[in-house]
This record gives sequence, C-alpha cells and structure tokens, in this order.
Amino acid sequence: MLNFFILVPAVSIAALAFALSLALRVLRHEEGTARMQEIAAAVREGAGAYIRRQYKVSSVFFAVIFLLLLFLSFRNYMVIFVPFAFLTGGFFSGFAGFCGMKMATFASARTANACRSSLNAGLRLAFSAGAVMGLVVVGLGLLDLSLWYYSLDWYYTNHPLPTAGMDKTTAITATMLTFGMGASFQALFARVGGGIFTKAADVGADLVGKVEAGIPEDDARNPAVIADNVGDNVGDVAGMGADLYESYVGSIVAAGTLGVSAGLGINGILVPMVIAAVGIIASIIGVGFVRTGEKASQQALLAALRRGVFVAAGLIAVSVFVVVRGMLGAEHAGIAWSVVTGLAAGILIGLSTEFFTSSHYRPVQRIADAALTGPATIVIEGVAAGMLSTVFPVLIVALGIVASFAFAGGFHNFNAGIYGIGIAAVGMLSTLGITLATDAYGPVADNAGGNAQMSGLEPQVRERTDALDSLGNTTAATGKGFAIGSAALTALALIAAYKEKVLLEGGDITLDLMDPLVLAGVFIGVMLPYLFCALTMSAVGRAAGRVVLEVRRQFKEIKGIMEGKAKPDYARCVDIVTTAALREMQVPALMAVAAPVAVGILFGINSVGGLLLGATASGFVLAVMMANAGGAWDNAKKYIEGGKHGGRGSFAHKAGVVGDTVGDPFKDTAGPSLNILIKLMSMVSIVFAAFVIQNTFVH
Amino acid sequence: MLNFFILVPAVSIAALAFALSLALRVLRHEEGTARMQEIAAAVREGAGAYIRRQYKVSSVFFAVIFLLLLFLSFRNYMVIFVPFAFLTGGFFSGFAGFCGMKMATFASARTANACRSSLNAGLRLAFSAGAVMGLVVVGLGLLDLSLWYYSLDWYYTNHPLPTAGMDKTTAITATMLTFGMGASFQALFARVGGGIFTKAADVGADLVGKVEAGIPEDDARNPAVIADNVGDNVGDVAGMGADLYESYVGSIVAAGTLGVSAGLGINGILVPMVIAAVGIIASIIGVGFVRTGEKASQQALLAALRRGVFVAAGLIAVSVFVVVRGMLGAEHAGIAWSVVTGLAAGILIGLSTEFFTSSHYRPVQRIADAALTGPATIVIEGVAAGMLSTVFPVLIVALGIVASFAFAGGFHNFNAGIYGIGIAAVGMLSTLGITLATDAYGPVADNAGGNAQMSGLEPQVRERTDALDSLGNTTAATGKGFAIGSAALTALALIAAYKEKVLLEGGDITLDLMDPLVLAGVFIGVMLPYLFCALTMSAVGRAAGRVVLEVRRQFKEIKGIMEGKAKPDYARCVDIVTTAALREMQVPALMAVAAPVAVGILFGINSVGGLLLGATASGFVLAVMMANAGGAWDNAKKYIEGGKHGGRGSFAHKAGVVGDTVGDPFKDTAGPSLNILIKLMSMVSIVFAAFVIQNTFVH
Repeated sequence: MLNFFILVPAVSIAALAFALSLALRVLRHEEGTARMQEIAAAVREGAGAYIRRQYKVSSVFFAVIFLLLLFLSFRNYMVIFVPFAFLTGGFFSGFAGFCGMKMATFASARTANACRSSLNAGLRLAFSAGAVMGLVVVGLGLLDLSLWYYSLDWYYTNHPLPTAGMDKTTAITATMLTFGMGASFQALFARVGGGIFTKAADVGADLVGKVEAGIPEDDARNPAVIADNVGDNVGDVAGMGADLYESYVGSIVAAGTLGVSAGLGINGILVPMVIAAVGIIASIIGVGFVRTGEKASQQALLAALRRGVFVAAGLIAVSVFVVVRGMLGAEHAGIAWSVVTGLAAGILIGLSTEFFTSSHYRPVQRIADAALTGPATIVIEGVAAGMLSTVFPVLIVALGIVASFAFAGGFHNFNAGIYGIGIAAVGMLSTLGITLATDAYGPVADNAGGNAQMSGLEPQVRERTDALDSLGNTTAATGKGFAIGSAALTALALIAAYKEKVLLEGGDITLDLMDPLVLAGVFIGVMLPYLFCALTMSAVGRAAGRVVLEVRRQFKEIKGIMEGKAKPDYARCVDIVTTAALREMQVPALMAVAAPVAVGILFGINSVGGLLLGATASGFVLAVMMANAGGAWDNAKKYIEGGKHGGRGSFAHKAGVVGDTVGDPFKDTAGPSLNILIKLMSMVSIVFAAFVIQNTFVH
Repeated sequence: MLNFFILVPAVSIAALAFALSLALRVLRHEEGTARMQEIAAAVREGAGAYIRRQYKVSSVFFAVIFLLLLFLSFRNYMVIFVPFAFLTGGFFSGFAGFCGMKMATFASARTANACRSSLNAGLRLAFSAGAVMGLVVVGLGLLDLSLWYYSLDWYYTNHPLPTAGMDKTTAITATMLTFGMGASFQALFARVGGGIFTKAADVGADLVGKVEAGIPEDDARNPAVIADNVGDNVGDVAGMGADLYESYVGSIVAAGTLGVSAGLGINGILVPMVIAAVGIIASIIGVGFVRTGEKASQQALLAALRRGVFVAAGLIAVSVFVVVRGMLGAEHAGIAWSVVTGLAAGILIGLSTEFFTSSHYRPVQRIADAALTGPATIVIEGVAAGMLSTVFPVLIVALGIVASFAFAGGFHNFNAGIYGIGIAAVGMLSTLGITLATDAYGPVADNAGGNAQMSGLEPQVRERTDALDSLGNTTAATGKGFAIGSAALTALALIAAYKEKVLLEGGDITLDLMDPLVLAGVFIGVMLPYLFCALTMSAVGRAAGRVVLEVRRQFKEIKGIMEGKAKPDYARCVDIVTTAALREMQVPALMAVAAPVAVGILFGINSVGGLLLGATASGFVLAVMMANAGGAWDNAKKYIEGGKHGGRGSFAHKAGVVGDTVGDPFKDTAGPSLNILIKLMSMVSIVFAAFVIQNTFVH
C-alpha cells in the first residue's frame, strides 16, 4: 500500500509559508489617514490587552488540569505524554486564534483604505487577510499533528510501550486525542469569553447608541464603540480561529482513533491526515480562483467566493479516491465515498443555511414582514424560523451518518462503518482552508466599516464596506453550518471511541436505550446545551446591561460628547466587558469538563454514553437553531435598512434592531460554542474513562 | 390477592356526580348586570361556535384514520376493536374539554359578580368551576377505561381470542392503548387549534390595543377583545381539559400495557386504575380543604390551594401501599415506592416551576430588571432563564426514572422496573382531580376580569379578579410541570411497550445507541419538537399579524370606536383567528402521525426507537423551557405593573409587554402541545408496529 504521509508535514509548512507571504503582502498596503491609524491602533491594543488576560485566566485552568492529568498518569490511568499533549493542544489552538486576530487587526484599516479606491480592492485585501487565517489554522493544525505523530512513532519504536500488550497505535492515538482535548478546551474559553465580550459590547453599544440616542452604528461619539470593534476581533476572529482549529484537529484525531479499532492499522491514523493535506492543496488552488472584475456586483462577489470553494471541493473529491485506495487497499475503497458524503453534506448544510439566513429568500423576508407589527412578532417569527431551519441540516446529517457508515462497509464490519462516520467529518472540514477564508473576511470587513465611520471617511466608503460585510453575514452563517455539522459527526465518532476505550480499560459497556441509567444520561445530556446557553446568554445580557448604564452615564456626565467636543472614555467600556467576559466564561468551561465525569461517577459509564449522545443531538439542533435565527434577524434588519417597510428609522426598523440584538448572543456567543462543548465532553469522557471506571458507584 | 377494582367505576361515577352537584351550585349564582350577561353570552356563543368547527375538522382526520385502522384490522395487523377504541378516545377527550369549557363560560360572569361582594366569594366560585373540570376529566377518564376493560374482559372470556396463542391481557391492552391514542390525537387538535386561537387573539389584541392605542387590556373598544376572551376558553380550558384527559388516560394505559410483560397478569392492568381511583377519592377530600377566611391575602389563597393538594398527595401516598401490596403481593410491594417517587417528583417539579415563574424569586425579578434596558435584553434574559429552568426538572426526572425503576425491582427484573417507571407517571397524575382544579380556575378568573372590565364595573372588582388571575399564573405553570413531567415518564413507558410490541409481532429490535439507524432516529427525534414548535409559533405570529391589521383597520374606518360611540366588529376578529387556527393545526397534527410511520418504513424499527427517545427527551426539555420562559415573562410584566421600575406605562413596562407577548405562544401554544406530541408519536408507533415491520425497507 502507498504511503502519502510525507505530504502532511510538507503541505502544512507550505500552507504556513503561503500564509506568511499573503500576510506580508497585506501589510505592504497603507493604513490610511492619521485618524484611521489611530483608531486601528486603539482596536489592536484593546484586542491584544484582552486576549492576554484571557490566556492568563485559561492558563490557570490548564495548569490545574495538567497537574491532574500528570497525577493520573503517574497512577497509570493514562500514558505520560497525555498531559503534555493536552498543554500543546491548548497552546496551539490559542495561537491559531491569536495569529488570525493579529492579521485582522492589521487588515481592517487597510481594507477601509482600499475601499476608498474600489470595492474590489477592498474585497481582495479582506479576503487575503481571511485566507491568512484559514491557512494558518489548517497549516498549524496539521503540522502539530504530524509532529506529535512522528515523535510518538519514533519514541514507541525505540522504547517499550507503557503497558505490556498495548498496541503502539493505541498509545499514539490516546495521546493525540488529548492534544485535541487541549485544543477544544482552549477554544471553549476563546469562543465563550470572546463571544461574551463581543456581544455584550455590541448589544450595549446598539441599545443606547442606535436606539436611544439615535446616532449611527460605529459612531465615534459612542463610548462603547471601541469595545464593540475590539469585540469583533476577539470573538469573531480569535474565537472562531481557535474554534475551527479544534474542529479540524478534533475530526482528524477522532477518525484516527477509530482507524485502529476498525483494523486499518497505522494507515487508519494516517489517512485522515493525508485527506486533510489534500484539502489544503485544493484550498490553496481554490483561493487562486477567487477573483472578480473591477465593477463586480455583490452577487458576483458571492459567486467568486463560491467558485473557489467548489473548485477546492471538486479537487478533493477526485483525489480522495486515489488516496484511500492507495493507502487502505481496494477492500476499503468505499471509505472514499464516506469522505465525499461528508463534503456533500457540508455543502448542502451550507445551502440550507443560506436559504434561511439570506434576505433573497422567503424566511428572512417573512421575518422582516413581522417587523411591521412590532418587536414581539419579529422575535416570535425569528425563533420559529430558526427552529424550522433545523429540519434540513438534521435530515442531511441523519442521512450522512447512515450513508457514510454504509459506504465504509459498516453493515458488514461495524467498526469500519463508524470509521466512515468519523472520516465524513474530516471530509466536511477538508475545505476549511478556503471556507474559513471566506468566513474570516467578514469581521475584517465589519471592522473596516467601523474604522471608516469613526474616521469620518466619505459615505461611499462605508457603503462599500457594508456591501462586503453583508456578504460576510451569509458566509459566516455557512461557516457555522460546517463547524456544527462536522461537530455532530466528530462527536459520534468520539462516542464510539469512548466505547472502545471503556472496553480497552476492561470496563463493561452496553448502550441499550432502555437501560434506565442510559435514559437518565440522555435526559441530562439533552439538557446540558440548554444550561450552557443559559449561562452564556444571561452573561451577555448582564454585561450588556452594565455597558448600557455606563454609556448612559457618560452621555449624561461628560458634557459635549454628543457635539463631538469631548472624547468619551472608551477604556472604561472595554474594561467592563473584559471583566465580565473573563468572569463569566469560567463556569461554562468547568461544566463541560465536570459534567461527564460527575455523571460517570454517580450513574456509571453507560449513563455517560447516553449523556454524550443526548448532548450531541440536542447541541447540534440547538446550535443550528440559534445560529440561523441570529443570522436571519441580522439580515432581516439589513433588508429593512435597504429600504423595505419604511427603511432606516421606521417603526419596522426599530423592531428589526430588537430582533438583531436578541440574535446577537444566539449566533455569536451561545450557538457557536455548542459545537466545541459536545466534542469536549466526549474527549473528557475518553481521557478520564479509566479513572471513572475504577471510581464509579455503579458497576 | 385482593381485588380493589370495583372501586374504579364506583369512584368515577361518584366523581362525576360530585362534579354535577358542584356545577349546579355554581349555576345558582347570579350572572350580574344585563351588560355582564350580554358579554358572557357573546363569549359563550363564540367559544361554542369555534369548538364545533374544530370538532368538524378533527372529525375528518378521525374518519380517515378510523378507516385506515379498520382496513388494517381486516388485514389482521390489529384487533378489530382497535379502530372503535380510537374513536371513543377521541370523542371523550373532546367531550372532557367541552364540559370544562361550558362550565368556564358559565362561571366567568358569575365570578366577576361574586367579586363585587368579596375576593373570597370570587375565589370559591372560580375554584368550584375549576373543580368541576378537574373531576369531569378524571371521572370521565376512569369511567371510560373501566367500561372498555369490562367489555373487553367479558368479550374475550366468552369469545375466542383474535389470534391463536395470544394472551387475553395482551388483546385487552392493545385495544385500550388505542383508546389512549384517540384521546391524544383529539387533544393535539384541541391544544394546537385552541392554542393558536387564543394566542393569536391575545397577541393581536395587545399589540394594537395596549401598545399602540394605549387602551387597557380587555377594553370593550378593542375589536379583538371578544376573540381574546373566547380564546381563553377554547385554548386554556377546552384545550387543557382534552390535554390532561389524554395525559391521565395515557399514563394509565401505558402502565397497564407494561404490567403484562412484567408478568403481573391482569392485576398489572388494574393497579394503575385503582391507584387513579384512590387519587380521585383523595382529591375530593383535598377539595374540601380549600377554604380561606373572608379577608385572606394572596399568599393565604395560595396556601389554601396548596393545602388541598398536599392533603390529597399524603392520602394517596399512604393508601397506595395497601393497594399495591394487596393486589400485587409482598414480592412487588416496592412498586408502591415507585408511585410515591412519581408523586414526589411531580411536587418537586412544581416547586422548581414556582421558583422560576413567581415574582417572589430572583429569576422573574432579574427578567424585570432586564426590562430597564429595553425589549431586546428582556427577551434574552427570559430565554436564558427558561433554559436554566430546565436543569432541575431534568435532574428530578432523571433521578425519578432511576429510582422508580429500582424501587420496582428493575435491577433484578427488568420489565418490572419499566413498569415502575410507568406507574410513577400514574402516581404523578393521581392528584389530577385537585391539581387540575387549581389550574383550571385561572382562566375563569381571567375571563371574569375581562367581563368586569368590559362591563365597566368598579375598579375594585378588577383588582380582585387580577389577584385571582395572578395566582392562576403560578398554578397554571405548576400544572404544566405535571403534564410534561408525567409525559416524559409515560412516553418512556410507551417506548418500552413499543419494544415489547415489536417483539410480539415477530420483529427484531435492538436499541443500541451506536447503531447508525438508531442514531439517525435520535437526531430526527430531537429535531421534531423544534419543527412542531416552529409550525405552531409561526402560525400564531401570522394570525396575530392579521388581527393587528384588522384592528388597525377598524380603528381607522369605524368612526367613534375610541369615544365608545360605535361598536367594533367583534365577529370579524373571531372569524380571522378561527379560520387561522383551523387551518394551521392540521399540519402539526399530521406530522405527529406521519413521522414515526415514515421513519419506520424508511429506516426501520430500530430507528423509530431512537426517534421516540430523542423526541421524548428533546420535547421534555423544550416544553419546560417554553412554559417557564413564558410564565416568567408574564409575571415579570405583572411585577412591573405592580409598581416596580416605573410601573404601568413606563419604558420598562413597554419592554415587559414585549416579553409577555413573545412568551404567549411559548407557554400557551407550542410548549404545552409538546407533551401530547411525544406520547402520540409513541402510541402511533405501537399501533402501526405490525404494519411497519412488514413494510419497512430495512430488515
């Protein structure tokens, strides 16, 4: 059988090098006027200051869990590399988000400046910045995985295995899985902390600025405006970067872990990485296809982005047959179809997302119509639309599960079928290099708009950045569809890996639906995403409330703000949301780690299986609902602002702003964190399985 | 072993007789002034007209399914009595709701009139009307069940069994289960149709009347006011009556069905009915304990209602040990503890509900605080609080599942344990006679307030009806907690019964969580409650929008309405919501029947098992979230109206009205229908099991 594995480190280094060259090209552009530079510097500084504090807080959690894992590994509950893999996963997940954020904060003023000459120049700059992030995430992810793989392979080839009779591949995957767990844990902090920060600032700024004082969005007179712009970078960029890093790495290690039990040997671990490497090459080629003429319409821009994604997907679909047949042999050639199933499912979920969140279709228009009868009906209609939008993604995933299982031969060889489900998640994320680029460019455009507004550039510039931003809303919603769709498949693969792990540790596990302990686990699992959302959403509500009071206070106490004669105290608002985000992100993060272990100890390992499945299904549906409802409200508001139902300032527009504000924490705080939550809980269950088996009350 | 079964028909007839005497006593009171009588007559007429049309529409569905069942029974897929049991279940479920509604429409003006003399007189009258409904539901339910039991027992004793080798008890329970299915199907129409009617009218009336025109609630100048009052009767009374009839009957037949497979023989079927009969006696005694002094405070009123419930629960808890030991023998005496587990779980869920929906506690106060920063934050905070409120009920139900299973000896005898889960649901609902009385009195008080307002009675009367109504909000939320908590347990029992049924029909069923077809079923099942809510909520939104436009039109076109010189066209608004409710209730009802059959045919019977479990867990959590969020918003608004944050007309109050309006379809349309949905899908799966097994694509 062929070994394409050498591709992996080579391609990841190439991706990073390409990212660097793109970044340098972006940096060669001018940042614009002195005022523009000043604002960009303020945002950069605020984002950097927040992210450093966030890392400090998460470091404490990492240190505690590292010591715990170290202790457990000394007690022989796990391999000694596990704690270190956990640390490196956390570090690189954070680092991937950090790089993306740095790039975004350097690119926003430059994008605004480019928009002064043309829309297309702006698009190219913002998209380049997004591509840097996409390539850094995939390049870094794959490089880290291949380094861990090479090191572990070398070590276990030259040293005795930790336990007599243990398979080398098992020792390797156990460690790599913990690398994934570290990445997920860091990503959870980044998504939740960043998500609370950005939406508390956004909601707070809008409620007083837009609704009460009647000043435009991103107006420099609004004391919360810098916090709002900082938020876009720490939440939508750094948070998303860490999030997708963990999705990417998580899907690869989950599939790899299953490869061993499917009897595919070492190549079972390597194939997901090679598919990912092929995806990177395809993405880089796809990036080259994103070009438009000088006077492109918005539809043409979207078409250009799409062309890039489709080219990449097509290339992957073709190459994967060669890779799978070459590495796994003709017997397992069907697994290539599992990859294609994943790719196709991702694209279909994206199309469904677009239908429900783009103002070109009925759902968003109907939400906008509901604005005519006020804020209550727009909220009801938005929630209903969000719920309705779960139908297609669920059916796609349900069919995707069955199809990828069947293609991999699961009805004859169960473990191979489960491997097929895991590999479908890898397939879905294989285009991440380019889909993340189309996704990450949105916040850059958003910030460019903020910069243009605050710098008092000509209205035409703001119009151009708005066009870019509105496009970004659709691509962002699509990106979330990929993240959550792949999370469902990855989490299922991880549940299977959990079962394997329990059996390996000598535990007895039967996941019968009628077992009352499994049932109890399913109920608790279905509830956990609600608890998680409750915590994060009310955190946003509370912090936004504090911002509102502060902004009102500044408008009242600092004379001359409204006339532009006095400068508001931006730092105070940044400080309020920073403190709130850092405090409020801790309980949800702790919950994700504690819940599966606690249920395991109280109700036993079967119950944990029920919990993981319940949380996966419930978290998936809830996440889709929240992401799509939020995206739809946002675009319904933009649709009204485009002149429908009376346009800006009308009764309908006021209702639209309420809908958009309600949707903010739905789509940017609670919803996107759920995909991390469900995987993290599965990984925690696996890593702590040996410990739970020996300490549970239920035998 | 003792046979207490003779209690069952005797007690149910006694309950109906007691209900009749209470009803006659209510009718002896005066309806008040001519104006009051006129309004009461208009509401009565509107409610009667709607309900007749609703029955017409549901009759069509019943006829189709009846013919289908008849056809399938001729093809030997089921016993010949099944189609007729289905019809009678539907008839009596509707009839129970109809009786309650008649009583409520006769009691509301009388309650308003009684409130002219004192608060206590009002309470006694409204509570008597509620008690009539409570007793009719339980008396009728138990009478119907015992008649079916006697008839079937007599028939199969004197005639050959339908299939050679079939057990008599199996033939009996199969028919009785379909009686439950008929009741559930009718209840779904009543809850969904009535729920859309009432909330579309309520939302529509409030949005224009309260928010735009600034006239008080229930003002006679509002063209939607009669529709709103009619809605309370067809939704909150007739809908709730049918709903709880099906919950009651469903829990009893589900437990009875499991009694056979638990090896308890005929007494396994009878024990749930006897427990229910004991519950009726205890409830009647409890009703006698609901008394207050002439000048009771609101807290004292609540205490009086509580005392009645606690007395009933205590009596049941004691007697059930005698019943279980006497009928099932010492070996199964632990099943009595399963009943107590159910009773206790119901009370605990009620307390949790009260904490999250009463303005005496932090959650509602925090929602009211969020009103200070506007409608968006009150919506965010309410959704978050609703999500948080799912934690305790889920933990209570999870523990309740494990405990009732264990008490019934499930860890040694699996089927006995599952019987314990079913019997816990019967225990939870055994106090229904009195809990439903405290629940149903709310809408009577609400309508009394409407009557007082429209008749222009002195403000003091409205204050008294408001006090009664606000108390009703808490008891209503508690009642919903019972309905959904028992539904979760009943549905689990039904899933077990489904598994038994499939085995009995020669099908092969293994509900392994890692089976991809089961997984697909779980995902689809988790999604279905969202789809259901999406359909019903957007129906409310759309219909309310139409009411708004109509009310605005009347205000504009009919000169003199606002000065009270011209009479609005009430009938037009009633007509709009009637048409909308009847049209929009059909798809959700169809979905409940079609989904499990379609998934069974496409993905096989294992997948249906996954679907039912997914829908049960997801529907439970979603229903609790929606009911509690809705109740909390309602009471947060009332809390503000009580003078907090600026009181009526303040900025916070306007936000509070938005929250309340969003909560309306949450708590009175979508949420409470979910408990019916999850049981109905299980029953449909059982009834059509033989058909699906022989026609599925997956073997």
